[in-house]
Amino acid sequence: MRVLAFLDGTLADPDQAHLRVDDLSVLRGDGVFETILVTDGRPRELGPHLDRLARSAAMLDLPEPDRAAWERVVQLVIDNWSGGSEIALKLVYTRGVEGDPNATPTAFALGMEIDEKVKRARAEGIAAVTLERGIGTDLMERAPWLLLGAKSLSYAVNMAAVREAARRGASDVIFTATDGSVLEGPTSAVILVRGRTLYTPPPTIGILPGTTQGDVFRAAERAGWQTVVESFPASELTSADAVFLASSVRKVTRVHTLDGQPLADSTELHAELAKVYDSQYD
Amino acid sequence: MRVLAFLDGTLADPDQAHLRVDDLSVLRGDGVFETILVTDGRPRELGPHLDRLARSAAMLDLPEPDRAAWERVVQLVIDNWSGGSEIALKLVYTRGVEGDPNATPTAFALGMEIDEKVKRARAEGIAAVTLERGIGTDLMERAPWLLLGAKSLSYAVNMAAVREAARRGASDVIFTATDGSVLEGPTSAVILVRGRTLYTPPPTIGILPGTTQGDVFRAAERAGWQTVVESFPASELTSADAVFLASSVRKVTRVHTLDGQPLADSTELHAELAKVYDSQYD
Repeated sequence: MRVLAFLDGTLADPDQAHLRVDDLSVLRGDGVFETILVTDGRPRELGPHLDRLARSAAMLDLPEPDRAAWERVVQLVIDNWSGGSEIALKLVYTRGVEGDPNATPTAFALGMEIDEKVKRARAEGIAAVTLERGIGTDLMERAPWLLLGAKSLSYAVNMAAVREAARRGASDVIFTATDGSVLEGPTSAVILVRGRTLYTPPPTIGILPGTTQGDVFRAAERAGWQTVVESFPASELTSADAVFLASSVRKVTRVHTLDGQPLADSTELHAELAKVYDSQYD
Repeated sequence: MRVLAFLDGTLADPDQAHLRVDDLSVLRGDGVFETILVTDGRPRELGPHLDRLARSAAMLDLPEPDRAAWERVVQLVIDNWSGGSEIALKLVYTRGVEGDPNATPTAFALGMEIDEKVKRARAEGIAAVTLERGIGTDLMERAPWLLLGAKSLSYAVNMAAVREAARRGASDVIFTATDGSVLEGPTSAVILVRGRTLYTPPPTIGILPGTTQGDVFRAAERAGWQTVVESFPASELTSADAVFLASSVRKVTRVHTLDGQPLADSTELHAELAKVYDSQYD
């Protein structure tokens, strides 16, 4: 099932048309979004997601999102959900209608079921490939118009990368920078594990600050793990004790195969970290 | 006025909603487009635009566009147009509804009036700024998942660059590659003039093949100009006899100021080339 609510508090039928063809999300991929996991009626990391929505909106010069209204519309979708115990809840905030000088953002929340494919990935892990992202790690600060670190709706490249992974027999991607540094996945953050230490690259190299990654790190620290936010080269992935992709909907997903080569068996590390993460929401 | 027609030949009211919120154009900027100039009922460079739509669609693994249907829908919009003598006609072709295994592309043509701002730019020229695009010129062939050279709907960066130009007191952008080469504008191709020779960078460095640029070059060759397709550094822009931005809707627009510095007065060169270009359509 799908539940749709607009930011003004209107519930609507997701199977009907609600957007004009000249909404700038359609014509230009011009807007920002978040995807939040709701489990048993509780949205995970809602605060960090709304923080990041506001940050992305600022990077795109969109009006500041009305935080209280977003909190209400999230609850509205949850209150009207009658599907499974989990919801993938998308918040979408676009620049509105093209050419309208009084255009206001189009804003809605859409609750969706979790794909079977996602559930399988959580349980079984995935194969991933490394793909060049074609950018340097020093660009973000110097060239803010490239929107590195903004979660914009312009995800055609992210989706093309996932299709390239499929052509290579994998289901996900780890992007690398021109200097070989690990960046992020098309829809996830990368976490590398060595011993009892978790590593992830810093947002300053031109990637999204990961909400789930952040939450995993905080939970892991409380459970006695070390965490380090620093750049590392892709070559470290193959010698790590574990490589995980963190995203709201997939939570912490284990990468068992990289570029066709099996990685170290991280089944136990994964089970432990997944438990540390999920136990916050029990 | 706006005239909207879907690819199946249905005319529709552009002021009404026609798209679901979960169309992948909305959620992922996942689709391709073209913008065609129609003057006095004749679409300019329709063939090259439909060629490029097909090429972009192939790069995004979308089904091959039905060329005859697109030709019909272009004519349908033109036949139902009662606005000014020019139409900016957008063709949009998206991946369809998210999560629907039987999803078919959403496809429509939208005719719009030409902005006053565009008309002013054609007549008076514009100020532009150079901005880094953050990519190398050798990426396109090596990393096709980056969709360099595909006209995808994911234009948030292009729009952000134009806003950055506005912050710098200009109205358009010339993107440069990491090696300082000139790439393209966010919605245009760059043409540089020295004497009686026109220069533009080759698509192989990761830019769109320009339909208007191509048409200008063919017309100019017939009128005795030389044309060269090769890379050149941004430093050449300031010493050129003229710098033009070519796009369907703005046609050949003169850049009179670059990064705050006046360029050589190209008023006469512009008038001559604009005439060569337009006279094909008289």
